[in-house]
Amino acid sequence: MNQSNNVLVAQSGGPSMVINQSLAGVVLAARADVRAGEIYGARHGIRGILEGDIVDLRAIPEATLERVARTPSSALGSVRMKPTPEDCARIFGKLRSLGVRWFFYIGGNDSAETADIIGREAARAGEELVCFHVPKTIDNDLRENDHTPGFGSAARFVASAFIGDDLDNRALGGVKINIVMGRHAGFLTAASALARRAPGDGPHLIYLPERPFSGRRFADDVMRCMEKYGRCVVAVSEGIADERGTLVASKFSSERDAHGNLQLGGSGALGDALADLLKRETRGAVKRVRADTFGYLQRSFPGIASETDAREARAVGEEAVRAALSGKWASGSIAIRRAPGQAYAVSYEVVPLASVAKNTRSMPDAFIAPEGNDVTQAFIDYARPIVGELPPVETI
Amino acid sequence: MNQSNNVLVAQSGGPSMVINQSLAGVVLAARADVRAGEIYGARHGIRGILEGDIVDLRAIPEATLERVARTPSSALGSVRMKPTPEDCARIFGKLRSLGVRWFFYIGGNDSAETADIIGREAARAGEELVCFHVPKTIDNDLRENDHTPGFGSAARFVASAFIGDDLDNRALGGVKINIVMGRHAGFLTAASALARRAPGDGPHLIYLPERPFSGRRFADDVMRCMEKYGRCVVAVSEGIADERGTLVASKFSSERDAHGNLQLGGSGALGDALADLLKRETRGAVKRVRADTFGYLQRSFPGIASETDAREARAVGEEAVRAALSGKWASGSIAIRRAPGQAYAVSYEVVPLASVAKNTRSMPDAFIAPEGNDVTQAFIDYARPIVGELPPVETI
Repeated sequence: MNQSNNVLVAQSGGPSMVINQSLAGVVLAARADVRAGEIYGARHGIRGILEGDIVDLRAIPEATLERVARTPSSALGSVRMKPTPEDCARIFGKLRSLGVRWFFYIGGNDSAETADIIGREAARAGEELVCFHVPKTIDNDLRENDHTPGFGSAARFVASAFIGDDLDNRALGGVKINIVMGRHAGFLTAASALARRAPGDGPHLIYLPERPFSGRRFADDVMRCMEKYGRCVVAVSEGIADERGTLVASKFSSERDAHGNLQLGGSGALGDALADLLKRETRGAVKRVRADTFGYLQRSFPGIASETDAREARAVGEEAVRAALSGKWASGSIAIRRAPGQAYAVSYEVVPLASVAKNTRSMPDAFIAPEGNDVTQAFIDYARPIVGELPPVETI
Repeated sequence: MNQSNNVLVAQSGGPSMVINQSLAGVVLAARADVRAGEIYGARHGIRGILEGDIVDLRAIPEATLERVARTPSSALGSVRMKPTPEDCARIFGKLRSLGVRWFFYIGGNDSAETADIIGREAARAGEELVCFHVPKTIDNDLRENDHTPGFGSAARFVASAFIGDDLDNRALGGVKINIVMGRHAGFLTAASALARRAPGDGPHLIYLPERPFSGRRFADDVMRCMEKYGRCVVAVSEGIADERGTLVASKFSSERDAHGNLQLGGSGALGDALADLLKRETRGAVKRVRADTFGYLQRSFPGIASETDAREARAVGEEAVRAALSGKWASGSIAIRRAPGQAYAVSYEVVPLASVAKNTRSMPDAFIAPEGNDVTQAFIDYARPIVGELPPVETI
């Protein structure tokens, strides 16, 4: 006999500009459903469950929630934590005492893995817990999804930054390298290509984790670009790796998180190393070289979210509640599918947790130029509706 | 006998988000004045004059110019070049052949120095050239000015970035260091304080070039902040220097420009070094430390300009034309003065070129907290109207 009918939601992994839209989606959809009792939020993901750091989300006025939805980063706080079976047992105890029947975890592939672990352990322990993952990742690397909430807004930041930075480089010349987030997948780095409006616009070169990176080829590419345009703007993914698959950034970092991922963000070392490499390989022929690492601004800059992204982030939260409360599934994740045809349209589908957990997807070959240093028109067509209209520019 | 009545304008130094507003101000004010003949633009500052890279700015439709005005970076291109007397003689030859009587140079203190050199050489050579500087610098360090065009928009970027980054840090904890532009003056780094809305909001510590930087004190400050808030967001100026006045960043850079300035931007080395210092000085007590260097995005990010800043940048261009064509001055610069009283209002005044050339101003003591690691309310009151309303945020 289990009379639990309460909801608990939490956020996990790296924040995004629209992850609070998903939170608002879960909370408002649950509020609108008579089957839902209390609606709790756990602070800092499953850590908040373990530590009893719980917020009453029914008590928050709708207008406040709407302002939270438009605020970047994870309003409930986040965590990077992979639960052990013992953690799970303690989590179930806490959830039972809170009368929680429906558990929602908003995050990327590591968060999906956490939800999957909790879902499996719950089934094994005979807990009556429905466990749903709500997708979020600026990396756009969740399988099953055409694209993921958070990507469109981060891509909008990256494309906007490249528009400005290309104009800056046009004014003062030289080589400009910008390091973009993306551990295994190059989608976000590829989004820099949306900055191009006219022939000659940067970025002129784009390096992705999906193709092996060679310092020698990089220097040759840049030299050719300098000869052609007298300047060169380069987008480089933080996740680039050499022929053997070794992360170029691993030479400068050794810190790992709970899921075993190497720390890549929050350091300018890769950009600086590539700038040095360029000066060395070109024997001083390239003089003015600058490197910026966009860093955490890509995932939390206020006031720049893509409207499409914000709308879809809201929808996946609502869809997760709809699916979970329907009683048809013990667990699952919501995937975004794109409708075929010219006009942009999406639908949402319930997929098994295991299909999005842990493993990620990369850029399809059709999105990468044969030379391995650019994207294709197919990628541009794919990304543009997700990112939306970019700020207009005019040159003389 | 000199029948020259043409205008030439150029841009110099680091770009900004509103430097094209000043360009539009010069061009549209000159177009509206019957005394002005042709209106030329030189590409890449005085280099364009020397190389004959000249654009007809009368031919550009007003609607196009208005779009250019809203586009970040220097539409005519920029340069960092200090003219020799020989350069000046060649410049005069070119200007004479173009029939230029009024010369406008938009830029910071180095550009004012260039304008001053050209003005003095012109007087010595008996050239009938009127030479005006139009102020621009995101560093806000021009003397005579209450504040400078470009600062408000860069400050808006910095404050917005800190709003997002503080929310990000709130979600995942640890220490976050952000390196902000500002060679000698801390104004732009100080603007990070505008990100604070509620007690406990970051940045929690602000380090400026105006106060000697000590690694030991920095580590102590951060440890105290961690004890109080469990997290710490830090704003650090790229121009911080030790007790002896040695730039901390000089340990990582040796590149200098034509005006003798050390290269500070375009490298993440300072942030990374401070993160390492922190881990070392706290003997590992502070674990999660990340550093981002905002870099060139601060001066060229599209769609984020402060409206007040844009309006004033336009006005200084117009005022320069008004002053130059009045025939009252052989040379000068336009300074922004703030009217006394509660309501924000400014006026524009002609000042001698020498008074803004080369030397810069720093943050007044009244803007810096006695502890040397924060700003005062007086600074907040000073900066807020220049930066304008920031994106709203809501927390749970």
